[in-house]
Amino acid sequence: MATSLDEAVEAIIASGRRLDARGLAPATSGNYSVRLGNGRIAVTVSGRHKGRLSRDDVMLVDTDGVALEGKNPSAETALHTVIYRLHPQVNAVLHVHSVPVVALTRHLPGASEVVLQGYEMLKAFPGITSHEISVGIPIFENSQDIAALACEVAEDTGQRLRSGKTQAPAYLIRGHGAYGWGKDLEEAERVIEGLEHLLSCELEALRLRAGVPT
Amino acid sequence: MATSLDEAVEAIIASGRRLDARGLAPATSGNYSVRLGNGRIAVTVSGRHKGRLSRDDVMLVDTDGVALEGKNPSAETALHTVIYRLHPQVNAVLHVHSVPVVALTRHLPGASEVVLQGYEMLKAFPGITSHEISVGIPIFENSQDIAALACEVAEDTGQRLRSGKTQAPAYLIRGHGAYGWGKDLEEAERVIEGLEHLLSCELEALRLRAGVPT
Amino acid sequence: MATSLDEAVEAIIASGRRLDARGLAPATSGNYSVRLGNGRIAVTVSGRHKGRLSRDDVMLVDTDGVALEGKNPSAETALHTVIYRLHPQVNAVLHVHSVPVVALTRHLPGASEVVLQGYEMLKAFPGITSHEISVGIPIFENSQDIAALACEVAEDTGQRLRSGKTQAPAYLIRGHGAYGWGKDLEEAERVIEGLEHLLSCELEALRLRAGVPT
Amino acid sequence: MATSLDEAVEAIIASGRRLDARGLAPATSGNYSVRLGNGRIAVTVSGRHKGRLSRDDVMLVDTDGVALEGKNPSAETALHTVIYRLHPQVNAVLHVHSVPVVALTRHLPGASEVVLQGYEMLKAFPGITSHEISVGIPIFENSQDIAALACEVAEDTGQRLRSGKTQAPAYLIRGHGAYGWGKDLEEAERVIEGLEHLLSCELEALRLRAGVPT
Repeated sequence: MATSLDEAVEAIIASGRRLDARGLAPATSGNYSVRLGNGRIAVTVSGRHKGRLSRDDVMLVDTDGVALEGKNPSAETALHTVIYRLHPQVNAVLHVHSVPVVALTRHLPGASEVVLQGYEMLKAFPGITSHEISVGIPIFENSQDIAALACEVAEDTGQRLRSGKTQAPAYLIRGHGAYGWGKDLEEAERVIEGLEHLLSCELEALRLRAGVPT
Repeated sequence: MATSLDEAVEAIIASGRRLDARGLAPATSGNYSVRLGNGRIAVTVSGRHKGRLSRDDVMLVDTDGVALEGKNPSAETALHTVIYRLHPQVNAVLHVHSVPVVALTRHLPGASEVVLQGYEMLKAFPGITSHEISVGIPIFENSQDIAALACEVAEDTGQRLRSGKTQAPAYLIRGHGAYGWGKDLEEAERVIEGLEHLLSCELEALRLRAGVPT
Repeated sequence: MATSLDEAVEAIIASGRRLDARGLAPATSGNYSVRLGNGRIAVTVSGRHKGRLSRDDVMLVDTDGVALEGKNPSAETALHTVIYRLHPQVNAVLHVHSVPVVALTRHLPGASEVVLQGYEMLKAFPGITSHEISVGIPIFENSQDIAALACEVAEDTGQRLRSGKTQAPAYLIRGHGAYGWGKDLEEAERVIEGLEHLLSCELEALRLRAGVPT
Repeated sequence: MATSLDEAVEAIIASGRRLDARGLAPATSGNYSVRLGNGRIAVTVSGRHKGRLSRDDVMLVDTDGVALEGKNPSAETALHTVIYRLHPQVNAVLHVHSVPVVALTRHLPGASEVVLQGYEMLKAFPGITSHEISVGIPIFENSQDIAALACEVAEDTGQRLRSGKTQAPAYLIRGHGAYGWGKDLEEAERVIEGLEHLLSCELEALRLRAGVPT
């Protein structure tokens, strides 16, 4: 787990290339981070294309998201640091934009979660060992007030933990994108790929139901 | 047919890269195997990403799926070995996850098969020489009890063989994915690509029918 | 236009790789040919994957499609030679399978053509200089009797030429795939890419109309 | 901003490869330009495939679009030069064809714009800092009279500027494609990728609504 900055940078660059190839990094969207062995966080610089990151596009911030270099970290850095605070075992956070995430969350304007059940792919989430489970992926309203959004995430996580229900290592922001995390970047990427598959299946189900009068 | 372990490993790594590029290996889903000349089976290790396999991610098991190395074979290894037992001429089995397979099998909750007819692509299945045929692709309910699922597959195969109907070298698991096989890995990959095309066409037909009151 | 065999082989291999990357060569589907300077035809061997062709996978046939080497040319070679006979200026023919072609032709079971009008992309077809045109892409019923199908293509081409209507350098086979051609392989590939775009747009229009009661 | 011809050519070739990989350059569609430090414009030659451009496929024109070399610039060069005249800070223009653009504009036959609101991805457009905004992307009728179309674009831009409403660095041509621009090619490409994401989301919303009786 004692990831060095060099390892983190290399891993983030490789992830960006793969996520972009899967259609998960249009324009300069998304931001990625890794918690290093020394507690600092390597995060992508604001406004760079994630499909072609270079060494210069990853920077260090402290646990509060304060820049430790003369660059601008991603505007959503506080949404990464809140995850690290809430989940001590988590060392990587990925945020991506995709058409299924945006289309699905906008099509369900009142919903506070997407409930996924019966999918084998739920096993892409660490700790889930069977499809016979129901997992709610939280949906938050989009906001440019990242601090407020981070508070909402923290509060919702607390409530869900107290409820004893199975937690997903991911949440959605309506009309915006998805966050996913894991003990390392490999696990976080697995969560994001699994989530995209699951939401694409849900969207397909909505399409097929669209024409059926209920 | 006397495939060596080295040939099998190289072929499995290449197949994984191609299947992932086609969207058939999200997260760490899927598992692949090849029956070697000596009867042993080379199978992917549990939990690795199929788009970037290395030599270390393929291991040997015996005909009962028992590990011959100190690693964990895929949790679904018994679904590979049952195919090798049922079909002596088969030397490669591929299991993949895809949105069309999951969406289609979940949209047809009661169905025990998807019937494909009139498609030229049916000729991707060995032994089929015309589109003027009707082929049922079995659908099994998903289960974490792999031994029980393997029994169901064996039983269903026996019934279908006795019925004299044309068999597909493939089956589906509801909400989960597809299995396909062939005399070698190249043929198994052809079956999987053909199947994905056919199910995508069926799904498109369902979409187009969605709005038409019946 | 005096293409040599070596040039043709190289061009066919490159086209195969690109068409496969666009999803137009699932399994071992499709077949490609180029008419050489000496009148002979270089055509893909039967049953090879078009995304990874090698020198050995292209062979020579004469103008009647008779093999000039000890290999099996594509089973649909007669559908290539009929195009060369009908169109002296054509030196390359491509046949591909795709989900939009199959889904669209099966959704319109009675139709003998897909009429495309108002699309800028119609200009991908040689000789068409404006979107303000209506072009019918013929649809033939699928058949394993390739000689009979070649006759139908010849007859239909004659009728369409006599009608004076704008011709497309392409036709569809129901539930099967598309043929497209050009003065060289580059032009034929442009036709196929343009056709796939146009049919994808038509399919999307059908999807959007699906839910609208007419 | 003082881009040299060599830099422009290299950047255009790289953009073409990426846009083609995203499905935005079928057949030989699209055309790309960069305004150089000396005021001249580097633009793609007519009829070349944008996914595999070479040095020879980019040429110089003056600010009126008149060729400064013995080649044919893109037939739509006047649609590039009008953007440079209207927007002094713009130094790159991209025109692409895509299925979502064509399907969406044809499905809304009477509409003079697509209104996008509430999407985080709107921030891919320079100057937009919040999703809480409504941006109209103009739709023009397709025409082969490029001079007339350029006039329409100029007139509409004037009206929209006078209206004080937020402008998008992009417009659509019905049944044809999209134009997008930026201060450099990187920004123009970001606009195009963002626009494609946004229109794909809108199209998905239309699909989901298709079956819902209104």
